[in-house]
Amino acid sequence: MGAAPGAILAVGGAEDKVKKRAILQRFVREAGGRSGRIAIVPTASSIPEERASFYSEVFGQLGAGDCVHVPIVTRRDAQLVANAELVRSCSGVFLTGGDQTRLVSVLAETRSFEAIRTGLVAGGVVAGTSAGASAFSATMIVGGQTGLNLRRDSVRLGTGLGIITRLIIDQHFSQRDRLGRLLAAVASEPAKLGVGIDEDTAIVYYGNGVIEVIGTGQVFILDAARVVVNGLGDAPKTRPFSISEVALHVLTDGDRFNVVERRVMGADEGPSEEEKSPRRVASAETA
Amino acid sequence: MGAAPGAILAVGGAEDKVKKRAILQRFVREAGGRSGRIAIVPTASSIPEERASFYSEVFGQLGAGDCVHVPIVTRRDAQLVANAELVRSCSGVFLTGGDQTRLVSVLAETRSFEAIRTGLVAGGVVAGTSAGASAFSATMIVGGQTGLNLRRDSVRLGTGLGIITRLIIDQHFSQRDRLGRLLAAVASEPAKLGVGIDEDTAIVYYGNGVIEVIGTGQVFILDAARVVVNGLGDAPKTRPFSISEVALHVLTDGDRFNVVERRVMGADEGPSEEEKSPRRVASAETA
Repeated sequence: MGAAPGAILAVGGAEDKVKKRAILQRFVREAGGRSGRIAIVPTASSIPEERASFYSEVFGQLGAGDCVHVPIVTRRDAQLVANAELVRSCSGVFLTGGDQTRLVSVLAETRSFEAIRTGLVAGGVVAGTSAGASAFSATMIVGGQTGLNLRRDSVRLGTGLGIITRLIIDQHFSQRDRLGRLLAAVASEPAKLGVGIDEDTAIVYYGNGVIEVIGTGQVFILDAARVVVNGLGDAPKTRPFSISEVALHVLTDGDRFNVVERRVMGADEGPSEEEKSPRRVASAETA
Repeated sequence: MGAAPGAILAVGGAEDKVKKRAILQRFVREAGGRSGRIAIVPTASSIPEERASFYSEVFGQLGAGDCVHVPIVTRRDAQLVANAELVRSCSGVFLTGGDQTRLVSVLAETRSFEAIRTGLVAGGVVAGTSAGASAFSATMIVGGQTGLNLRRDSVRLGTGLGIITRLIIDQHFSQRDRLGRLLAAVASEPAKLGVGIDEDTAIVYYGNGVIEVIGTGQVFILDAARVVVNGLGDAPKTRPFSISEVALHVLTDGDRFNVVERRVMGADEGPSEEEKSPRRVASAETA
């Protein structure tokens, strides 16, 4: 990837693809617009070629300079030097929706994944929608139950790509009624922030630990760092468990959240120097 | 009502009436058991006589000394001295489910309501299920939308009986997916605690400001007292609004919450002197 200013975009799925398309427009712009080149990685999808050509057309309409389909279906594909080079030639990478377990099992720790990570360090842009957004987490939500019920088996967790280690990302959040499972996830890992992203809504995550919300829906942030009571460990599977002092934030378009300080930023807090300059995502993450 | 030690029981609806019946059993016990007398006020219901005879039978099976149906259907009924005297002769009052707007419009500020309030001050027990629980609030949830969407019109608020002024009570909470509307309610009145009670679950509210949770489900408490961002006032009806720093507690059977200090109590914090002695609910409320 080039040196274009970039960030990570985690999209809650079902982003507008025909009208204002604010989220996809933002991605194309962050990827360099006319002078940018976008790699579409449809590995999560069960119909990868269709997805790739569909997004390629939309990104073209939105002014992307060039789009390439990176044909990664198997782990062998992800290890091919040619595919890693294809990723490396791009200023932006887009991970489609589908199945996050498929995506991670194929992509994790391969040459193509290293190309994505290296591009991020160099200031590239990576976007993922739906399953592609979930896969950014290190602790990844694999599945779970809908609704507000808080039980030991409300959520199933696995290992994700680990591009954003501080967050546990969930998607289609209000639409599929996922508060209970995200709450169960942060009960399990209270050091991480739970981030539930609605459809047609995204977070833009900057290397300095600032999240910006864009789109028409909501982003729920669950912060269990100050939890006093956490009954997860003792609860039998069939009974709900208690948790106290979870901080809940519901954010909408334009809101910004500081992940390091775990607080909403004021409108008067202008963009930091880091937000204005090329990102250093990976280094900030490991700091 | 007599001098039996008492409290307020707000039940989330659909309480077990055929098996263990822990909630109704607790009510009968708090009302004095064999030596107690229970007034059933089925005003919220569209089938009041059926409801009254049904609960009368259940309370009898659970060992209540006596049960009387207080036939309040209209506001005129609620003003009848005979009905107020009937309430006054009882150690416990049970408000059935149905429609909280009907219940409040008939009962508020009548002789029968004053008899309930006087009984509470004297240490009696009042229970309400579903609509009967909602009606305890001063700011009462009248209706609203399901789901996690946080919009200006997510909740419709009205004036309740005001027996528990500090809480905004919602019921059938997880089952009818009501987090969004309760969050919108506390966004509107941040000084009050939002309390969402699941089915077959209840809070027992003591005069000293301690809530105890009983039953098989969950109680969600939303505390907006420390909210920093609250977009309710500026939000157009059609867009979601932001809110930050809401404290969320999910409580289960046996948990206790201090409403005054807005915190979960530890298992090692034994019952206070006030919890062991007759309640002074109304005086605590106005303090």
